Amino acid sequence: MPLKSRIETTIANAIAQAQGGQAPPKLAAALDYAVNPGGARIRPTIAMSVSFACGDDRPEVSNAAAAAIELIHCASLVHDDMPCFDDADIRRGKPSVHKAFGEPLALLTGDSLIIMAFEVLARAAEHDPARAISLIRILGESTGMPGGICAGQGWESEDKIDLGAYHRAKTGALFTAATRMGAAAAGEDPEAWTELGARIGEAFQVADDLRDALYDEATLGKPAHQDEIHDRPNAVAALGVRGAISRLEDILGGAISSIPSCPGEAMLCEMVRKQAERLTPVVPSRQTV
Amino acid sequence: MPLKSRIETTIANAIAQAQGGQAPPKLAAALDYAVNPGGARIRPTIAMSVSFACGDDRPEVSNAAAAAIELIHCASLVHDDMPCFDDADIRRGKPSVHKAFGEPLALLTGDSLIIMAFEVLARAAEHDPARAISLIRILGESTGMPGGICAGQGWESEDKIDLGAYHRAKTGALFTAATRMGAAAAGEDPEAWTELGARIGEAFQVADDLRDALYDEATLGKPAHQDEIHDRPNAVAALGVRGAISRLEDILGGAISSIPSCPGEAMLCEMVRKQAERLTPVVPSRQTV
Repeated sequence: MPLKSRIETTIANAIAQAQGGQAPPKLAAALDYAVNPGGARIRPTIAMSVSFACGDDRPEVSNAAAAAIELIHCASLVHDDMPCFDDADIRRGKPSVHKAFGEPLALLTGDSLIIMAFEVLARAAEHDPARAISLIRILGESTGMPGGICAGQGWESEDKIDLGAYHRAKTGALFTAATRMGAAAAGEDPEAWTELGARIGEAFQVADDLRDALYDEATLGKPAHQDEIHDRPNAVAALGVRGAISRLEDILGGAISSIPSCPGEAMLCEMVRKQAERLTPVVPSRQTV
Repeated sequence: MPLKSRIETTIANAIAQAQGGQAPPKLAAALDYAVNPGGARIRPTIAMSVSFACGDDRPEVSNAAAAAIELIHCASLVHDDMPCFDDADIRRGKPSVHKAFGEPLALLTGDSLIIMAFEVLARAAEHDPARAISLIRILGESTGMPGGICAGQGWESEDKIDLGAYHRAKTGALFTAATRMGAAAAGEDPEAWTELGARIGEAFQVADDLRDALYDEATLGKPAHQDEIHDRPNAVAALGVRGAISRLEDILGGAISSIPSCPGEAMLCEMVRKQAERLTPVVPSRQTV
């Protein structure tokens, strides 16, 4: 089965399990709404690609790792879109979960997706308990406090932001989770894969800043120019558009050279190159760079 | 070490770990604020009592089970108090987390505590991986969808409520988690312990309804008469005060007789009797019963 189908099937099975039994119907519908149709599924694709490059000898465990990361990512989008954070009405080109279902169900959708991610990994223990535990620990570290995406979001409530800690936690943590969990799912040492994830995370942060600055709401599928509106530190403000694009290329070069030696090394370099092409924005000709 | 100290020490260690590294300071403070000083720590006390009655042969695993349940309980209180749910300003006699820290940090506090609960259990895997996995699965079931406390809260957004499913999920799930996880932490079959948890959960629901109807805000440490104000189905409305007290006594009798045969059976019966005394409200003399 292609990697993409494995990711979608595993996510669909997790959602179906959460909708079973005597689930309250609206919350059950909101879970599916928050996760489907998905975005680019970038984080699980990275996890699966790393697993695959490392031999993928426990496919069910790799599937679980990839799905768990995406469920957490979707949970974070649902909570971040809520009125007390970004107050975003639109996500992936449709009403955000709190707009479609109301705030109480949005809050519960995020909570349920977080829990679901851990459940997916715990069920994978039947295939390999030691790897499942390792995956659960990495997911916890990458998601909670003191260094996961909750910590990253938490920095936005501070008067004085530690910018390094902020970016590592808010954007980087789920990308390092993706490479580390991909490796751990295939029985490899996750720590050797941290740098690749960190570099990809940095690249995404710069690319996101560029898209936010250059594109409009229709192209983005979410409100544009948010960094400027909220006066948030960002790569375009710091380096200009050309400088940010050049920085993006440097980071992706670093990502490729950080890939540990493994059976699928060449394939993985190719995947990073493809992501790099996807990431590098097309600068509109009228845009002053 | 007495059970109570074991619970508090394990919770304190989990909070300290989450506050370490480069944690954002306000969110770090909010985690502690949400969990300390605690309420009666009833759910972890039940879990520890069941573990103890079953032999408690892996104390670190029992400690983790008890702490994880309490962290989830505290997370649910933080999220339930938020403006989109109960909009409660007061909890345990002090400002609720969103009142003290603002909504964004309250939302993140709940998320972080949920994740922390799973991390505590994953770390206990070094003492017994199989039991840790079993505990993680039970915690997930009891917390998420389709039958955990998120599902219970989700029912409140439905036009037509399945009352049985609602109460089982909203209140019952963490009590059955407590007895099941207490047993699983000590290597016993968790399913034999479901009924005890379910009965204690029912008893708490009835007791909670009685306290809400009979006591004032100062005594409760939170707003009173909420069932009547929000026209929520409750035991006092259905049975009257005397009827509800009589029902509470019946349920607790059933709880005691459901206790599986185990080394600490007598001690456990005593624990349930003590909880029963704590639970049964003193009816104010001026109250019409």
